[in-house]
This record gives sequence, structure tokens and C-alpha cells, in this order.
Amino acid sequence: MADKLAIGIDIGGTKIAAGVVDEDGLILARVRRDTPTTDAAEVLDAITEIATELRADHLVRSIGIGAAGFIDASQSTVLFSPHLAWRNEPLRDRVSRRTGLPVLVDNDANASGWAEWRFGAAQNEPDVVAITLGTGIGGALVIDGQPYRGGHGIAGEFGHMQVEPDGRPCECGNRGCWEQYASGRVLSRRAAAEVGGGSPLGRRLVELAVGEGLAPHQVDGTHVTRLARAGDATAREWIAEVGQWLGVGIANLAAALDPGIFVIGGGVSDADDLLLLPARAAYSAALTGRGYRAEARVVKAHLGADAGLVGAADMARITARRRRPAHPAARARVRAAARSGRSPRRRR
Amino acid sequence: MADKLAIGIDIGGTKIAAGVVDEDGLILARVRRDTPTTDAAEVLDAITEIATELRADHLVRSIGIGAAGFIDASQSTVLFSPHLAWRNEPLRDRVSRRTGLPVLVDNDANASGWAEWRFGAAQNEPDVVAITLGTGIGGALVIDGQPYRGGHGIAGEFGHMQVEPDGRPCECGNRGCWEQYASGRVLSRRAAAEVGGGSPLGRRLVELAVGEGLAPHQVDGTHVTRLARAGDATAREWIAEVGQWLGVGIANLAAALDPGIFVIGGGVSDADDLLLLPARAAYSAALTGRGYRAEARVVKAHLGADAGLVGAADMARITARRRRPAHPAARARVRAAARSGRSPRRRR
Repeated sequence: MADKLAIGIDIGGTKIAAGVVDEDGLILARVRRDTPTTDAAEVLDAITEIATELRADHLVRSIGIGAAGFIDASQSTVLFSPHLAWRNEPLRDRVSRRTGLPVLVDNDANASGWAEWRFGAAQNEPDVVAITLGTGIGGALVIDGQPYRGGHGIAGEFGHMQVEPDGRPCECGNRGCWEQYASGRVLSRRAAAEVGGGSPLGRRLVELAVGEGLAPHQVDGTHVTRLARAGDATAREWIAEVGQWLGVGIANLAAALDPGIFVIGGGVSDADDLLLLPARAAYSAALTGRGYRAEARVVKAHLGADAGLVGAADMARITARRRRPAHPAARARVRAAARSGRSPRRRR
Repeated sequence: MADKLAIGIDIGGTKIAAGVVDEDGLILARVRRDTPTTDAAEVLDAITEIATELRADHLVRSIGIGAAGFIDASQSTVLFSPHLAWRNEPLRDRVSRRTGLPVLVDNDANASGWAEWRFGAAQNEPDVVAITLGTGIGGALVIDGQPYRGGHGIAGEFGHMQVEPDGRPCECGNRGCWEQYASGRVLSRRAAAEVGGGSPLGRRLVELAVGEGLAPHQVDGTHVTRLARAGDATAREWIAEVGQWLGVGIANLAAALDPGIFVIGGGVSDADDLLLLPARAAYSAALTGRGYRAEARVVKAHLGADAGLVGAADMARITARRRRPAHPAARARVRAAARSGRSPRRRR
């Protein structure tokens, strides 16, 4: 069993979450630390230290890294990362050289989606669309039981599909991107306006943030979600609006991809049915051919904040096991296992 | 060789185009006739007669049928067809019973996209998005060298992705669907307005239609394209506008799917660069991450109006050859052949 362990490292804009993960998706050991954001070399040092620390007590055979950004098709290079100083960073080879282990690098949303397919909400569904609602929108596709990364490695950037011509400006340089309407950023923006305006709602949001040791300007979508869960009508309205836009985008993706399931993860999904009920309603209303077609399920992700590290580790473990990662026979075996209804033990 | 022939039948709203197709995509014999639109039984009779006629001189082993509409995942039943009287029509089994041959039924756009991948513009590209611009927008996906039909058989309905909230009403019951902005319908609508208004442009459009033996009210997008090709500035503007919307939708699909190539077919693609240059410009401008990513090519389809029947025949031939259509080893073989760069002879 020990030779089936892999390290998963999820590199976020503020935190690095890492762990030793077994072949059932169980996390046997964890490490967390702040992300050094100014210098690419410091991130590499942090990754190396984390790997060393986790290997002290576990025999691991590979390392999987999930990072926000564009990863090239060979899963070796971070082409561009919005939060970090990486530009065309050959991360796979650098970490591999330092650790002596095979390394796989993938987009963080791809890693999360893969974890949900293997161990979470999307088990036994051959075709999956995973949507991660964080500050922006991350996405992942599983097609016929395989991660689908596209011709150049960067499929699944659903957040930058345009839903409103000449709409809200997006950090990507375009206007009207989906993530400007259906992500945590929308909630943060509304919360900041209330805080700035000094309204009773703004004051309640500040109280929550201060109670967590944060400054008033650090109020964000998580505080909106907490107020909404506690019954605040305005916070619920904001989340419902995000849910409606989520449903519109899901209907678009259903028209194009007709998956069996949509899995909704990320921090905003903590709002549960306050988000998912309006999303399902908008999706159903906007779905072309309703009444003549089966509809995909829209469900909350199961693995929470662990999905990224679990998925990255699992992909690294599977890839390291293969001699040639893209060998058709190996893929056929994985696919046949998926078809036969193999259900890996759940991690929780 | 003779045992490698299949009949392809492309059932459109007004015409049925059929032919005997060999394993290189060559059409050895053809039949065309009007589509009986009022009665599902008459379409079945027409299909049977066409098959009988084509089998008189050729030994065929299977029949592939492409039809506009939703086809179920087992490719046996037309769930819903907009132009025809089919509702949950078990077409595969009915035609198979009458002809004694194995039959495959697929969406017409899927058949066209498959033909382009096998014999046309998208050869040797593992991941393909095919867009058919006719009256509406049809779509097809090839992923990893296989037709991707989705969890319920109806992927690729790109035309019903929403591009404008509360936009133009669509026949599907929604508003703002892509095909209301980037299809032949847009050109027909503008042409009809000019004809109704009696403008000089309207009169030129009527002349073209009458020259083809049509009535003035039958002016459509094809006449706009002819005027545009002849240099008419307004017709060119209309096509450029359709091209810009085409580019916006292509950018959305690129964000989600990151294919290697977009193949643009259907009648509107006869406008060539008058359509494709503005489409490519809008696509490039709207593509998130430009400068940090490879961009898919956007090219015109090669097989023209034959694509549907050639693709339907080819899928039927391949499926009939397999004992179990979805057998993983068979799929791996097809995929391995695709990877090795096998390039089937071109049909023209």
C-alpha cells in the first residue's frame, strides 16, 4: 500500500494546502502555509520544503501540483498564473529535479474536478462538468471517464465565457465574462459597497469579519454567505442572483456538452440550496428542448476545500503508474473500469 | 472492397440527399428527393425506397441517417425533430426492419462534423468543434478522435447558447440564443425587410430569387451571400456582422473546450472570407489569455453539402464493423490510428 501514496499540493493565491493522499483519496498527513506571492523562486522553495516534510513519515512515489492558471498540454509548465509570479515556469521539471520524484502539474480546478469524479459527487458519471465558484469561476471537464484538457491544455475556463455583451469589465481584459456575474467576486463587491456606505447590513458584515480577526476592508463573499445562512434577506437575494446567473451558464454548457452531471464546488457553494435552488430553476427554464431531453443533475461538490490537493495527488499517482501517460490501452483500461461501475471507496 | 460500402441519408427540412459511400468517403451513387414533411410514415417510405434504389447497383452493408433534431444516446430514436413530424420515433429499428441492414441514426450536424474529421478540413486534429451555419446553428464535437455526443446524445447544440440576455426571441422558446445572431436566419430576416421595403437592395435580391425560379418571398441568406460576393457593400456588412457574432461564440467555445480547430460549414460559410475574417478578428479579440495560449484555427469546411450524408454513412460503416459499438479496445484502436497520423485519402 505504501507505494501507492502521492503528495498533493494545491497552490492558492494566499495559502498552499498539501497532503499525503492514498489511492482511496484519503488524506494521511497535511501541511498548510502561506503562499509567497512576490517571487517564483520562493514558491519553489516552499514546495520543496513541504515535500520534504511530508516524506519524513510516508513513502510517496509522486507529486501532483494544482495551481490557478494556464498549464501547458504536457502538464509541465505554468504558462501564466494570475496570482503568482509564474510566466512560462517549467514547474514540473524544477520540482522533479529537487525532489527526485515524478511530478504532474495541472490547473487547480482540473484537480478538484478530477477528485469529485474519483471520490466525490460525480462518481460513476462518465461525462462531468465541474464548476468551482471561488473569487472567479474555475472549471473542469471529465469526458468518457478521462480528464479533458483540450488541444492546448487549457479547456474549462468557463468563467470567461461571455454572458453579457459590453457587460461588466473583467480582469482578463474583456467585458461580460460569466465570472463577473456568478462568483464570489460579485458577493464581495456588493458587500464592499454596503461596508463603504455604512448601512446596517454593512455593519453586520464588518462585525463578522472583525470577529475572525480581519480588517473591515477584508469583508468578502464568505461573510455574505454566513449572513444569508443566518436568514438575512438581502444576503439571500444576492446569493439567489448569483445562483440565477449560475443557472444561465449551466444551461449554456448543457447545450454544448450535455453532461450527466454538473458539480458545483468552491467557497460560494457553501451557500447550499440558497445558491443551488435558484441555479436549478434558471437552468431548467433556459434549457432548450426541455420536455424532450434528459436533464443533467446539478449537485454540490463533496470534497470541499480538500478537492484540489486530493485530485492533484490522484492524477500524479495514476500518471506515474503508467509508462506512457497517453497510451491508448492504459486509457481503455481506466475507461473500462469506469464503465463497469467500479466505485472507489469514498474518503468520508 | 464492395463489403465496405454504406448508404448515407441526410434528411433536411426540404430535401433528402442520399448516396452510396465507400471507406474513403467517396460517393459512388446519389439520390435526391423532396422531404415529405407532413407525415412521419411517408418519410419512412421515402427512406426505404431510396435504400432499395441505391442497393440495386451496390452491395451495401449498413445505413447511416443524419437528421436535424435530438437523437437519443443509443442512436436509435429521434426524440424530437423541428422540421418533421417525428416525436420519439424509433427510426433505427423501423428502417432496419424494412431493409434488413444495420442502421445508425445521428444528428445531421454530428454527421457533418464527423465527415470533416475523417475526410475534410479537420483531419488529424484530435479535438474538433464543427459549427454548421444554416438557417440555425448546428454543432458537433470530436474529442480525442471520437464523436462526442454527451450523456444523453444531444451535445453540440451550440446555437442555443445564450449570447444576449433578454435578446432576440428564438424558436426554442428562449431569448438571445446564438443562432439568432450568427446564422442564415439573420441574413434572411434582413433580406425580407429590404424586399418588403422595396429598396434598391431589396429589388436586386428579388431579381436573384426570381432568376432561380423562386417567388420574391423566398429571398433568403443565399441571395445575400451572392450579392456580397458580387461586391454589394450592405450585404457585406450584414455578413460581417454575422461573422463578428460567430467569433464571439467561437471565443466562448474556445474558453470551455480549447479545441485544436473550429470547422465552419453550412450554407452561410459560402461567404468565405467575408464571413471568416471578421469571425477570426472577433474571436482573437475576445479570447481570454491571448498571448499566453495557442489559438485554435478557424477554417471553412471542405465537404460542402455532402458532409451530412458522407458522415452518416461513415459512422454507420464503422459501427456495423464493430460487434460492440462502445468496446474500449475498438475505440483504442481507432484512437491509436488517429494518433499515428493516419490520413484517409481525401474525397476530392
